[in-house]
Amino acid sequence: MWDSFSEKEKSILENKAVLKKAEANTFLYDSDETCSGLIFVCSGQLRAFYTSESGREITLYRLLEGDICILKASCIINSLQFDISISAEKNTVFYVLPPESYKTLMESSIEISRYTNEIIAGRMSDIIWLMDQIMWQSFDKRLASFLLEESALDESNTINITHETIANHMGTAREVVTRMLKYFRSEGYIKLSRGTITITDRAGLMSL
Amino acid sequence: MWDSFSEKEKSILENKAVLKKAEANTFLYDSDETCSGLIFVCSGQLRAFYTSESGREITLYRLLEGDICILKASCIINSLQFDISISAEKNTVFYVLPPESYKTLMESSIEISRYTNEIIAGRMSDIIWLMDQIMWQSFDKRLASFLLEESALDESNTINITHETIANHMGTAREVVTRMLKYFRSEGYIKLSRGTITITDRAGLMSL
Repeated sequence: MWDSFSEKEKSILENKAVLKKAEANTFLYDSDETCSGLIFVCSGQLRAFYTSESGREITLYRLLEGDICILKASCIINSLQFDISISAEKNTVFYVLPPESYKTLMESSIEISRYTNEIIAGRMSDIIWLMDQIMWQSFDKRLASFLLEESALDESNTINITHETIANHMGTAREVVTRMLKYFRSEGYIKLSRGTITITDRAGLMSL
Repeated sequence: MWDSFSEKEKSILENKAVLKKAEANTFLYDSDETCSGLIFVCSGQLRAFYTSESGREITLYRLLEGDICILKASCIINSLQFDISISAEKNTVFYVLPPESYKTLMESSIEISRYTNEIIAGRMSDIIWLMDQIMWQSFDKRLASFLLEESALDESNTINITHETIANHMGTAREVVTRMLKYFRSEGYIKLSRGTITITDRAGLMSL
């Protein structure tokens, strides 16, 4: 896409984007900050999540190397009428393009406007998939799938995570997570110790 | 927006959009037809819904007079990777702009591209709201809210609808709907007869 930009557009991207760093397990953007701009992840892992009025959380998606998050830009796209929060799950390096610069680009480049369409549509596809899972997949399948994904993200059979954190990812209560993890242990799929889950039967989880 | 269009763009809209009519309670677009184009509702009521692999349905949103539906345009916006179906709930008159014409407009008009961003973002906001409801609102609240909305759409206290249809709107099983409707009746909120629900205590439902 870079080649399609004018010199002026390139210069906005080069000069206005701010490089930031976040440590693992820190909070970056609150759901109240509705217009932080466009986020571009260079390395690391961010988590975008939604919080209910009663304070329950659910993970909407992860942002990995090369991913762009546009949903903190409701001052540019007025119809983004929901609030997401973002936290860093690993040490993360990312660029933030401020809203006013992003707006200038959107108004001058049809390529960027079209790319924005694609990004929003992609996130929407993720969320409809998530809704499908929540409504029609049983919790054992969702939890098995979650553990396998976490294991892939960490590139390890051992996942350092509390039951509370899993509940916040999946939008459910801690007790529900604990009960299902104990069932998985009794089936020999995993081992449990304080703050750690180890996958012992990957094929068993995958068959779920 | 019309004034911002070039003569060529205006002519595409005027000459390529096809006027269509659908009778109440007919099926319009299957989830397999991924690229029907842009739909603009002149009058009536369409229902956009998602169907799970196992055939369960949930209503994503309604399209009323003046509403635009863009989600049947995955050949233009590649990241729309989910399938929705559309049916007519009332006698409906609507325009369909074919995908190739819509694509031409998207490529020539930054206004249309930006408007597309807004429409997708708005639908995404609806769906995140829906997910919030599904996850964290109890079913009695959701059903009360559904009955009040249907009553408003029909401008009547009497709603002609089967329990099966309500279940398809809400993504649940018929038995669950029937049980809760019987509870509402026992509380004096509604009267039930074959294929009809009459709201008898609007304030009661609203307090839920």
